[in-house]
Amino acid sequence: MNAVIDQQQNLEQYMQQLGKQARAASAILANAAPAQKNAALLAIADTLIKQSEQLKQANNKDLLQGKKDGLDEAMLDRLELTDARIEAMVEGLRQVSALSDPIGEITGMDFRPSGIQVGKMRVPLGVIGIIYESRPNVTIDAAALCLKSGNATILRGGKEAINSNQAITECIRSGLTTAGLPEHAVQVINTTDRAAVGILLGMRDDVDVIIPRGGKGLIERVSREAKIPVIKHLDGICHVYIDDQADLKKAFDIALNSKTHRYGVCNAMETLLIDSSVAEKVLPQIAAAMRDKGVELRGCVDTLKIENEMKLATDEDWDTEYLAPVLSIRLVDGMQQAIEHINLHGSHHTDSIVTENYTRARLFLAKVDSSSVMINASTRFADGFEYGLGAEIGISTDKIHARGPVGLEGLTSQKYIVFGDGHIRQ
Amino acid sequence: MNAVIDQQQNLEQYMQQLGKQARAASAILANAAPAQKNAALLAIADTLIKQSEQLKQANNKDLLQGKKDGLDEAMLDRLELTDARIEAMVEGLRQVSALSDPIGEITGMDFRPSGIQVGKMRVPLGVIGIIYESRPNVTIDAAALCLKSGNATILRGGKEAINSNQAITECIRSGLTTAGLPEHAVQVINTTDRAAVGILLGMRDDVDVIIPRGGKGLIERVSREAKIPVIKHLDGICHVYIDDQADLKKAFDIALNSKTHRYGVCNAMETLLIDSSVAEKVLPQIAAAMRDKGVELRGCVDTLKIENEMKLATDEDWDTEYLAPVLSIRLVDGMQQAIEHINLHGSHHTDSIVTENYTRARLFLAKVDSSSVMINASTRFADGFEYGLGAEIGISTDKIHARGPVGLEGLTSQKYIVFGDGHIRQ
Repeated sequence: MNAVIDQQQNLEQYMQQLGKQARAASAILANAAPAQKNAALLAIADTLIKQSEQLKQANNKDLLQGKKDGLDEAMLDRLELTDARIEAMVEGLRQVSALSDPIGEITGMDFRPSGIQVGKMRVPLGVIGIIYESRPNVTIDAAALCLKSGNATILRGGKEAINSNQAITECIRSGLTTAGLPEHAVQVINTTDRAAVGILLGMRDDVDVIIPRGGKGLIERVSREAKIPVIKHLDGICHVYIDDQADLKKAFDIALNSKTHRYGVCNAMETLLIDSSVAEKVLPQIAAAMRDKGVELRGCVDTLKIENEMKLATDEDWDTEYLAPVLSIRLVDGMQQAIEHINLHGSHHTDSIVTENYTRARLFLAKVDSSSVMINASTRFADGFEYGLGAEIGISTDKIHARGPVGLEGLTSQKYIVFGDGHIRQ
Repeated sequence: MNAVIDQQQNLEQYMQQLGKQARAASAILANAAPAQKNAALLAIADTLIKQSEQLKQANNKDLLQGKKDGLDEAMLDRLELTDARIEAMVEGLRQVSALSDPIGEITGMDFRPSGIQVGKMRVPLGVIGIIYESRPNVTIDAAALCLKSGNATILRGGKEAINSNQAITECIRSGLTTAGLPEHAVQVINTTDRAAVGILLGMRDDVDVIIPRGGKGLIERVSREAKIPVIKHLDGICHVYIDDQADLKKAFDIALNSKTHRYGVCNAMETLLIDSSVAEKVLPQIAAAMRDKGVELRGCVDTLKIENEMKLATDEDWDTEYLAPVLSIRLVDGMQQAIEHINLHGSHHTDSIVTENYTRARLFLAKVDSSSVMINASTRFADGFEYGLGAEIGISTDKIHARGPVGLEGLTSQKYIVFGDGHIRQ
């Protein structure tokens, strides 16, 4: 029993130490010059190239252990660090270094009747905890975005990637040191003990925000246990609604692209809603094209009256993120019913209307409560790169702080600044 | 035992019902026209005037009960609804109705290389839970700001104000109905059972954000228990730092105003930091003026070498929000030490430097990690009205979402919107 308590105490101490180190590093990082942060990003990239053999060796340990532990093929694939993947990490670092620096931006310095001048300055959040699963490349992606935005990071990767992550961390540390930045600006939790996550989620003094990246189980655990604000993304149950005043060519293209461009992504369409008055015109063509692509269709009762070669959708289908070549289809009586369906069954991620009607387009924009709402565009555009953020740490389906794709700006906040000339309040 | 369980179940059901009603009302409120929301605000104001006798009668019940329960004079004073206070609530409603409506604002619609046009639309947060203590006027202030920003509200006032709050709620309900808005847009929890707060703090499906307003005990409980994002304000330990290149006349004015303009407010100065090289010139004059105003002074060892008619400050003083005519004074060796003191002992609320030096002013702005950072201005300016927000629901010392004074905009967020013309992703 004593051994357990000691280990627990040691873990607690270890985590608190990481926190203190991160906090101290964040104060320096918050005021590091853009050139210095960029130099660190490029130095990390160079180190990754130089160390690529060592990285692959460390990764191989994880792969062997993973096979022993019976990880499935998909997980082993996500875990693997190939030359191409190392090159992609390097390219990512270079891209982030080329982005403009968000920190220190001053906006809106307006004079007030009292004579003071008030505006806002963009600042880092401080210390960001990132909890993710098997992909080791997340270690670099997350570290790069946090570093560029002046935040210190505590990273917790999946236990199956521990050797890979440690090797990557060494490269990061080397790059930070080369650029004269504190080595604790990026720290990886160096234990596979699950209790470490629980401790991290409670470190209110030294961690300012938690970003979980991974499956639903992980995100739900983090949301439930965190004593710190969380920027999270749960499901992506995205809809396309084809209005009765849609251009049917656009409707066809958008429906096909939203579903079949990629299947396992959060911004893929999972449910197609069609105004019943145009369903006979547009549904057969869409259904045929989907089937050609190998998409399994499940429809509501009215859908089956037009296209009966599909399964009847159950109530569960409307609430399911398939992440697979499966599509549920429902006919609705007008846009209002479509909006109600989306707000009830959707996940507030991304939803699109296809219509030529101005008033309906405006109403759809206003009434659909999702992080991205689109008119005549594929849901697949909901993405930090497509939106011009230059990078993406995730897509937030929260309402507080950042909604939708989160780039560098989502890792910052704004403080008020006041310029006076000896002003006092009357 | 059964009775207790039943009561608990009933409370749970009651709270869930409030939540569902708020969620349904929020969908309507989010898309209510500005004119309709303003009509409701003015109708509530009219009702308060008409019902002022009934309000005072209900308030009187609370006052009598409060006296019976031994509330102190300060609490009874905060609890009392006088004609002047009712008039102030009415005036507040009219002011909020005159503010411009934040909802639906579309910004930054930029074309992307893909041809889509991407920007942001300002939207309400949804349902806001507000937990506050004895002042019944908060019921109106909070309801007005939430209503104007398109949010439904669940209000939980102090148990000592339950009759006053119910009477005010009747006025709100009447105003909402007059304007054709859902009566559940503003709901007050109609029980003094403390367990109701615990349930509210866990209603993740139906409440989007919690705003506690009150003493430290309340805010700490809410932070600890909430399963929902919290916009909160803990202490206001504000500093003024007098640099060795300060204009000493400005330094004197700003120090006096920051401390003595009002004592019991969060943006009052609690600690004065003075560069030791100018202390002999500026400290005696400030100390004398503070004493004239009845301010008790507590100084560091070096302070006492110059002005020995004061107590020695303890370590605890640097971490204390006095909210009273008490000031701690510390001499520092240069700005860097001042910044370290502020970031370590302050509460990230409001801090001001007095200096004529351009480079130091810029560094102070960048390095002080507070929600408001000022140059040559009194800390007392940290206020939603002074900043031009038109209203204030509180001052956030959080880093996520909103920092500093929170007005209407802090009760909103932005979703992405995309305009296409049949665009699909390549």
